Amino acid sequence: MKKNVTIIGAGLVGSLLSIYLSKRGYKVNLFERRGDMRKETMSAGRSINLALSDRGLLALEKVGLAEEIRKISIPMHGRYIHNLDGTTAFQRYGKEGQYINSVSRATLNMKLMDLAEQHGAGIYFNHKCTAIDWKKNIITFELPGSELQTQPAELIFGSDGAFSAARLQHQLQHDKFDYQQHYIDCGYKELTIPPTPSGDFAMEVNALHIWPRKDYMLIALPNLDRTFTCTLFFPFEGRASFSNLDTKESVKGFFEKTFPDAVPLMPNYIQEFFSNPASSLVTVKCYPWVREDKFALIGDAAHAIVPFFGQGMNCGFEDCRVLDELIEQHADDWNTILGKYQATRKPDADAIADLAVNNFIEMREKTADPKFLLQKKIEARLHEKYPGKWIPAYSQVTFSPYIRYSEALQRGQRQESIMQEVMQLPDIEQIWQAEEIEHWIISKVQNRPI
Amino acid sequence: MKKNVTIIGAGLVGSLLSIYLSKRGYKVNLFERRGDMRKETMSAGRSINLALSDRGLLALEKVGLAEEIRKISIPMHGRYIHNLDGTTAFQRYGKEGQYINSVSRATLNMKLMDLAEQHGAGIYFNHKCTAIDWKKNIITFELPGSELQTQPAELIFGSDGAFSAARLQHQLQHDKFDYQQHYIDCGYKELTIPPTPSGDFAMEVNALHIWPRKDYMLIALPNLDRTFTCTLFFPFEGRASFSNLDTKESVKGFFEKTFPDAVPLMPNYIQEFFSNPASSLVTVKCYPWVREDKFALIGDAAHAIVPFFGQGMNCGFEDCRVLDELIEQHADDWNTILGKYQATRKPDADAIADLAVNNFIEMREKTADPKFLLQKKIEARLHEKYPGKWIPAYSQVTFSPYIRYSEALQRGQRQESIMQEVMQLPDIEQIWQAEEIEHWIISKVQNRPI
Repeated sequence: MKKNVTIIGAGLVGSLLSIYLSKRGYKVNLFERRGDMRKETMSAGRSINLALSDRGLLALEKVGLAEEIRKISIPMHGRYIHNLDGTTAFQRYGKEGQYINSVSRATLNMKLMDLAEQHGAGIYFNHKCTAIDWKKNIITFELPGSELQTQPAELIFGSDGAFSAARLQHQLQHDKFDYQQHYIDCGYKELTIPPTPSGDFAMEVNALHIWPRKDYMLIALPNLDRTFTCTLFFPFEGRASFSNLDTKESVKGFFEKTFPDAVPLMPNYIQEFFSNPASSLVTVKCYPWVREDKFALIGDAAHAIVPFFGQGMNCGFEDCRVLDELIEQHADDWNTILGKYQATRKPDADAIADLAVNNFIEMREKTADPKFLLQKKIEARLHEKYPGKWIPAYSQVTFSPYIRYSEALQRGQRQESIMQEVMQLPDIEQIWQAEEIEHWIISKVQNRPI
Repeated sequence: MKKNVTIIGAGLVGSLLSIYLSKRGYKVNLFERRGDMRKETMSAGRSINLALSDRGLLALEKVGLAEEIRKISIPMHGRYIHNLDGTTAFQRYGKEGQYINSVSRATLNMKLMDLAEQHGAGIYFNHKCTAIDWKKNIITFELPGSELQTQPAELIFGSDGAFSAARLQHQLQHDKFDYQQHYIDCGYKELTIPPTPSGDFAMEVNALHIWPRKDYMLIALPNLDRTFTCTLFFPFEGRASFSNLDTKESVKGFFEKTFPDAVPLMPNYIQEFFSNPASSLVTVKCYPWVREDKFALIGDAAHAIVPFFGQGMNCGFEDCRVLDELIEQHADDWNTILGKYQATRKPDADAIADLAVNNFIEMREKTADPKFLLQKKIEARLHEKYPGKWIPAYSQVTFSPYIRYSEALQRGQRQESIMQEVMQLPDIEQIWQAEEIEHWIISKVQNRPI
């Protein structure tokens, strides 16, 4: 007998999960706190575009959705860096033909919901999880008008995001549940670059734009409507901070000094600065994720990460793909499936959480450093010439969906320590293309066991 | 105008806090989830005796309670170590005349409640905090029979322990609240050594007994009724673990092999093993502790720690003393008082949390090692001869209430690295009393800045 599956949260991961499970013959019901975004305009607050990369695409491919999503995505081939002195630089993400994809969160979510329903899943909107009796596996939902509804469940997935009610009402009620939520000092605020008067993109379209300014940065991703969504990652407190930019004059002065080439492209940035919220950025780690054959957390509910590697959604989608492979291997033995799901995914989720925090420093600070850009150029060349021996950490995470995050973290650290030695060589700027240097690096990477 | 103060939790710290605040002229109301322990016999589950040391005594002294508590305490001058081969060793805690005090949690709590009421505080029992509206500072309590009562508050203290409802209902509802709870792999279970047939203590009374067995340990503290309360700190899972000792035979076999000299003293240990719970051990760290002049966490609610340094209660009492000094300095300016309270106590609470985890390894493993005991002897001698220059870490924490925990952690680490060098010296067992070694150590400690 296949269990009935109850999924709490019909966001990106919950919707994709329901498709995977429906295709395996499970009866799935999804309960979503919000209304149906396909019928209502939703309140903002969540980032409106996302970077979909190969892990996410692989997971979408397995349910036949990758091609359709590619059509509504904009390829970004690299980082387009805007320095303070007005110079720009382009840093390719991977090899020729490798890119990440800017995609609208709402569009993607709506397509996944449509597909979920087509596969037979039921989606119940405006159902807010307010309690879980985990001994009896009964969920209480609050409906509009404060009406309460109880729902018995056989197998529950909590895919309700970083502030998961499923995690709070179930796992946090257990003894011996390890939990941590940590906020970084920076928050983010979204701003817009509209199309030019002639209706074109205002900047290079096939890139992720970065204005690296050491303690903070502005980034911009292209949208299909020829706008860019800019995100300012910025300290909450301190000299240059959200709390200090509290007048139109101070915002104007700061932006004109700090992002001079962006200001002319953002006609409404001052108004947006005061009307859009400054949102916080949290990392959540917890353990265990699962309870016997009855309950599991998935996606951000299990492992919320900061957005600086563009892997939050991709990691959640990968959770679904890995889980699906375990279902295939272990039929309906959910004790085994959930146990192996947790054992496999927990170290990978921990790894991408750490990689994501580190990447903030890389993006906001190092991309402004010519020596760092040279290092990336050396690594890219090594990757071209020795693709089996040297894969830059970014490429492992972004373009190598069969390398586990935990392996990418380890291999990346090993390669970084080699590159630190290389970058110390005198005149590295002149000699970096010398064959003996490449041989030396490759011998190092081969001799050093993980 | 002095604010009215609402304290959630009338345990050791909440009760002492109410005395401090009443003495400063504040109107204080305490709300306690449990019934009045002075009128009812309470359910077990919390450790029945505690080690009161100089920090706790100093805080009690300031409200005139130290002498009275000393009278109902049993001095413990050192560790009495029971090795597996039947040998024993005594390791003094500090200098001659320095000791810690075994005291009954219930007796101490009842005395503090009596004193709180004498000073004018109101204590309301069977009031379970179920919600806090932190925008309006209104607390909801659930009373027996599920009756709800709302309580407006001006200044709230959450002193309701490791699983604080105040923390959950207030701080965890805020954006940007850093929080972590981490369980160690070991739990604990209480057992009893009754008096001998002739009515005497069954072992040396003025000591804390330890049976160090590397991955686990048994300890015993004396009570006024001539019993000892034993605590088995033991892994939940694994070869030797609570989950594996699941039959009377396996418990008997394990205890007779592992604690041969304790078994004859514990006539009911097998029955107790199955009737007493195996409780878990958690470290809680969070930030912030305070909100403006309206709310603060204190004691375990702010910083639950594992019990291996015997500092949980002492640290909570010190919170009260430090807060009281800040009230004196800043009159009724609660914004300043709470801000400084948090800034001072957070690093100290973090430090004792780490010290407590480390001390588990020292107690369960190192106290069985003759070389470790020699190291402690060398340090004790240094402390006698150079009391201003060398204070062993244990003494800093336990007998030096004006050295901050954070300072004790730093100084302790520095001294430990020096002692690691000393213990590598050839023939240290023979030469440790040589003057040149002492001079060498003292010169090291003077030359190395913190």
